[in-house]
Order: sequence, then C-alpha cells, then structure tokens
Amino acid sequence: VKASLLAIGDEIVGGITVDTNTPWLADRLRSVGVEPVGAFSAVDEEMAIVRAFTRALEDAEVAVSTGGLGPTADDLTTAAVARLAGQPLVLHEPSLRAIERRFATAGLEMTANNRKQAMFPAGAAPLPNAEGTAPGFVCPVQTPRGARHVIVLPGVPREMRAMADATVLPWLVERGGGRRFASRTFSTFGLTESRLDELLSGLVAPSEARLSFRAAFPRMQTRLTLEGGPGDDLDGRLDVLEQRLRERIGHYLYARGDEGLEETAGRMLRERGLTLAVAESCTGGLIGHRLTEVPGSSAFFKLGLVTYSNDAKRDLLGVDPGTLRRHGAVSTETAEEMAEGGRRAAAADLGVATTGIAGPTGGTDEKPVGTVCVALAWEGGRWSRRYDLGARGRSYVKEMTAMLALDRVRRWISGLPEVERS
Amino acid sequence: VKASLLAIGDEIVGGITVDTNTPWLADRLRSVGVEPVGAFSAVDEEMAIVRAFTRALEDAEVAVSTGGLGPTADDLTTAAVARLAGQPLVLHEPSLRAIERRFATAGLEMTANNRKQAMFPAGAAPLPNAEGTAPGFVCPVQTPRGARHVIVLPGVPREMRAMADATVLPWLVERGGGRRFASRTFSTFGLTESRLDELLSGLVAPSEARLSFRAAFPRMQTRLTLEGGPGDDLDGRLDVLEQRLRERIGHYLYARGDEGLEETAGRMLRERGLTLAVAESCTGGLIGHRLTEVPGSSAFFKLGLVTYSNDAKRDLLGVDPGTLRRHGAVSTETAEEMAEGGRRAAAADLGVATTGIAGPTGGTDEKPVGTVCVALAWEGGRWSRRYDLGARGRSYVKEMTAMLALDRVRRWISGLPEVERS
Repeated sequence: VKASLLAIGDEIVGGITVDTNTPWLADRLRSVGVEPVGAFSAVDEEMAIVRAFTRALEDAEVAVSTGGLGPTADDLTTAAVARLAGQPLVLHEPSLRAIERRFATAGLEMTANNRKQAMFPAGAAPLPNAEGTAPGFVCPVQTPRGARHVIVLPGVPREMRAMADATVLPWLVERGGGRRFASRTFSTFGLTESRLDELLSGLVAPSEARLSFRAAFPRMQTRLTLEGGPGDDLDGRLDVLEQRLRERIGHYLYARGDEGLEETAGRMLRERGLTLAVAESCTGGLIGHRLTEVPGSSAFFKLGLVTYSNDAKRDLLGVDPGTLRRHGAVSTETAEEMAEGGRRAAAADLGVATTGIAGPTGGTDEKPVGTVCVALAWEGGRWSRRYDLGARGRSYVKEMTAMLALDRVRRWISGLPEVERS
Repeated sequence: VKASLLAIGDEIVGGITVDTNTPWLADRLRSVGVEPVGAFSAVDEEMAIVRAFTRALEDAEVAVSTGGLGPTADDLTTAAVARLAGQPLVLHEPSLRAIERRFATAGLEMTANNRKQAMFPAGAAPLPNAEGTAPGFVCPVQTPRGARHVIVLPGVPREMRAMADATVLPWLVERGGGRRFASRTFSTFGLTESRLDELLSGLVAPSEARLSFRAAFPRMQTRLTLEGGPGDDLDGRLDVLEQRLRERIGHYLYARGDEGLEETAGRMLRERGLTLAVAESCTGGLIGHRLTEVPGSSAFFKLGLVTYSNDAKRDLLGVDPGTLRRHGAVSTETAEEMAEGGRRAAAADLGVATTGIAGPTGGTDEKPVGTVCVALAWEGGRWSRRYDLGARGRSYVKEMTAMLALDRVRRWISGLPEVERS
C-alpha cells in the first residue's frame, strides 16, 4: 500500500507553524509496511484542498490528511472531501452526541458551529477522537485511476497521534490482508550512524526484518521492523533479534524505546535507591535541568551546583586552590574534586561533574574550545576523563558534555566499561 | 508573485527528517510580499521530482526547491529540472573552479562526482553557495500555462538560508518590479496572542503596513511588514510605526528581533556591569542553562544553586528553618530567602530564585500543581510573587517559571513595573 500525506492550513503553508504531523505519520506508516510516496500542503480554501487531494490520490491508494477539522468557517477539509467524493454532507448522530457529552463534561455550552464537526460525507466512516471534539473519518473516493481512500485526521498532534494509532494503522493493516507489523526501537549513545551501521551489518536477513537508523542527536536510534500473518508470534521473533542485536552493540544500547539518557539514568538511580549531586561548570545547569524533567526526580536528585567561577569551585565545592593553580579549572583533577565536593555537600551517593570550554572564546593551544572533562565520585572511588569535542558551538558542547556525564552515571551503576570515544 | 515550495529527499518523505526548510522559506517569502501557495515533497527519483515540479508550477509562477544537490547518485534535482526544462546539462566553469578552491582550502582531494555539482541545465543562472560545495540555480521553464521559474537550493539549512537571503529574495524583489519590502520583528513576554492582537488593534492602517503575529512559546512575536518603491525610506517608516507600537505595548516588548529573554537579560547585566546568582528549585537548572547559552555569560553569571531539598535550601542558601516550617518550601517567603542566600553566597549584585510544584504530583488544595514563586534580591531590597500556572506538565511549568524569573531581572534593571499576569 502506498500513501500520500497532506497537511492543511494557512499557518502550515505560510510557514507560521512547522508541520510535525506529516513526518510523524510517514514514520508510523512505514512501521506497518505502508510506503509514504509524497507530501502536499494546502491553504484553507476548499478548491485548494480538493486539488491537493486529487494530486495525492494520483500517486497513492490512500491519502491521509491532517488539519482543517475545527468548528470555524475556515476549517474546510470535510467540505472539500465531500466535493471530491461527490457526496452530500450528512449528520452522524453518535458523533454529535459524543461532542455534546464532551462539552457537558467540561461544563461548557456547545455552540452551533460545533455541530459541523459531526457532519461527514455520505458513505464515510467516522473515526472517534478520544482527546478532542473533532472526529476524523475514512471516505472512499472514485478517481479516474480507480477506487481510493481518503483518511482525514485533526491537526492537533496529540489528538491526531492517538487516533492514528487507535484506528488508522489497524485499518491499514487490515487492508494489507491481515498482514501485521511489529517494530522495536533501541536508543544508543556513543556511536556514530556509520559505526552503528557497521556493527549491525548482516545482523538480520532481509527476509527476517528491516533494520533502520535514525539520528536523534546526540543519541542514535535503530529500529527493527518485521511482518507476519495472523497467527505469527511477532513479539517472539523480535525477542530473538533483540538478543542478537544486544550481543553486537551491548553497552552502547541504553534503552529499548525512545527515552532520553536522563530517564534511563534517573530510573536506575531510583530503582537502586541511590542519590546524585551534580557540579556543573561548562554545562551551566543543563544536567540538572534534564534530570528534573523526569517526574519524581526529587527522589534521586539531591543538589545541583553551577560553579562557573574558580571562587565558587573553591568555596562551595571545596576544590583545592592548588589543584586549580597547577592543572587549571578545565582538568580531570579539578573535575574529580568538583564531583567529590558536590557529593559531600549533598551527602549523596554519587557526584558527577563537568568542566570545559564551551566557546566561542576561551580556548588555548593546549586546551582548545571543545575541551571538556567529566568526572564521577562515589564512596571510596573517583573516575574522570578528558574529551575533545571540537569548536562546534556552545549548545553542541554543552549538550554532548551533559550526555557524556549522564552516560557515565548509567555505566557506573550497571558496572559497564567506559565508552571509547573522544 | 505566487510561489510553491518543494522539499526533495527520501528522508523527508519517509519522516526521518523534519523539513524545516519549507516553513522557513515560506515565512521569508512572505516577508518580501511573495505568497506561498502550497508545498510538495518528492523522493529521490527523477520522475517523482519532475512530477512534483510540474504540479508546483501549476499553482505558482515560481517553484523553490530544497535538497537533492549533493554529489552522489541519489541526488537528482538538477537532472530532473533539466528534463523539465527540456535542456541538456552543461558544465559551468566558474562554479567548478569555486568547488575546486573549496576542496583545496580544506586540504581535501576533490572526487569526480563533485564535478556534477557544477553542471546546470542550459539557460540556468547558477547561484553561488558561500557555505558549501553545492551551488543552486534559477532556471526558466516553459509550461502549458506560460513561462515559469524554478529556483533550486541545497537542503543543508545553513547553506540554503544564506543563499536565499543573498540571492533568491533580491531576485524575487526585482521580479516584483523593484517594489521593496522591509519588516521588523518584536518579541514580547507576558501577553497572550489575543491580548496582543487587542492592544495593537488599529495600530496600522492596511495601506501603511501589515501586522502579523507569531506564537513562539513562551514568547509572543509581532512583525511589521511594509512595501515601497525604489526611492522610499522604508526604515524611516518602520521607525515611526515602531514608536507607535512601543506606546501601545511598552514594557511587554523586550527585544527588537528574535532574541530570547536570556539574551536580553544577559546583555543588560553585562552592559551595566551587574552580576547574578540563581537559586533554583522547581526549574532544576533551566535558568542557569539558558543564561549560559549566551556567549560571554561568565561575565555576569556568578553561581547557580539547584536546591531541590529543604536541607540544601537551609545549608547552602541559609533559608531559615522557621520560614520553611511556617510557610513551606513553595512560598514567597522561602523564595525571597533563597534569592538573598544565593546572592550572598556568590557575592553577586542580584539574586533570583524559583520554587514551585512542577507536577505531576506534589500538589495540595492550598498549593496545587503549577503553584510557583519567583523572587529577586538586591542590595537593600527584595521582591517576590506567587503565580498559578496550572497543571500543564513539568516542562511547561519549568519553562514559564524560568521566563518569569528572567523577565523580572530585565524589568528590575530597566525600572519597569511588575508584569500583570497570573
């Protein structure tokens, strides 16, 4: 099955809003074996939408649209599809009652224009929207090239995604003759795309599964997708492949799924009842920010200290002025004392520290911009390492340093080796 | 002039990469009075690209494409445009020499396939690429609807943006008969879009300028765009309108242009030689992270303390245990003592502090999720305020609290009143 995608709305065409629905849907469609062949956009004008659908159906059996389902006069997707299908709009009572219930629950008065959201082209099958007022629908359309289908979804990403997963993907799988697809994503840190590709080369035969890659800086993700008939044990087959994959990329793989390193590290700390203190220089608070994005982080995140100046490193973290004088603020020696000082100040199990030169200025021949040191301290031990990340901009250096620190926490807890990268 | 946009590449169609080029170009085109009427995408196949250009030129006089200009076999945009225009590909010597120079400067060997990047359809005008190897080009195309133009740009955003601003926009302005456009963007904080719209209602007559809005959460931007003939003083006219706009939205406007509040606050601190300490609880390091994204922040950012626990608030910031007991950690009283404690610990001119309940749990009837307090301390004075931001998720609460704190710093420095919002 081939599919075209269509994003509807003046704000999309005008560049006011970046359309994230189309790439999300394209990725999701591929995961069930549907091939996205192109994307279109249309302003909020009925004939522009009809034209875009007509083109979309020239290339594909199915066109999936997002947007233009709101209650106001400039939401014209439904009217355009009715025109395209040559069908009148008819009221769908169950959808109307669902919208009424939604307003009643929220204690709001339903206005007359919301009634429009329960009107569909005759012959269309409504798709319920659990998260908002606008149902979507699937509508058959006859074209000069044969029978086609249009799938219409709202533009609000949260609503659209829930509906796509609940109704559209199963519908497409069923149209594919009951063939089912299953996929599993793995998140890695410390490997480039080409290195990951190399390590996984030949892992799966084309008949077994499809292996794809996705750069989600500073992480790298890989995904296994496989298909089977109604009775197949797809999960079991994925388990086997995952086992093989883990043997190849072992400790680089930090999570099954799409989670961030801070979530993995935070979960591991919580599960083991460990607490953490963070002493940041060049990362400026980014590690604390990331860790506190995790709900429940107060269970493990004890303290963060952002010590840009030598005075603060000395006064608040107890870094030895002699260490600063002999080795400089950007050194593994200073980083270790920062980590231990933070740990002690917070009475935490672990202390992690960063110090470096984020740039654009401040580099020297010996310590160019992008030189960073990461350290970890625990009861009875210390670890540190210097990295050369290059002059790739403050944000890059900060981001990569924060990830190296979080990965070190993860590796220490799991007893994994130090990652080999520079 | 109407324009269609076209994004080329398997990674775009497949949803691997989110296409930010198209919305950026659409916004830029509108700023010079060109109307974007739709967007298309195509996989890396010559006929798919030809088809997309054909459709793009049905709706518009100009089609602007990004992507598919690399040296490898799957980069097919130039070949597709040559086919569309019915022209052979010819070598452009100056472009070839520019590519050779680029390789020589980098000390790299130029491979044979880079020669392809100096080939253009006969009759096309190359567009130099100052940032990369792939030049773009403008190519006239005859269609059943008349003479059209195709503008081809590389897909790397940095290269594409520089070329669009240097060559494409001036070319479009010239085609518009020498009509020139000028625009000015203003960034505000503390106003909703509808409130901003209301405050600016009637500010400019349609004949004077166009006023547009853009939500860039948590900021709100507004832009004035006007046009004129060759001799007009567009800057002078913008100055007059800016003056009027400032009278209406006064202290909500924190910057001309697109800068973040941390840049504005950081610049003001640096200009006045003031230093800042940040004591963060619910924002978890986000304020420090933001401020240290600003190059040169070490001049004003003295210290950050992320004190999640009461112990840390007491031990490191000197918050009175009696204050914590009587008013709780989330209170204006605690926030003020945190701000003053941070200021004192760092011997800084200003101390800013946040404390609140980011959620999803931890709320009470009296202090529901989303309750946050922001405080500022300076030599001889203190300020604080409680806000109810609602249970909109950790990220939202952290982001909004950080902005409220940075805006308070900005307002204090400028002697502006407290912003009225809850």
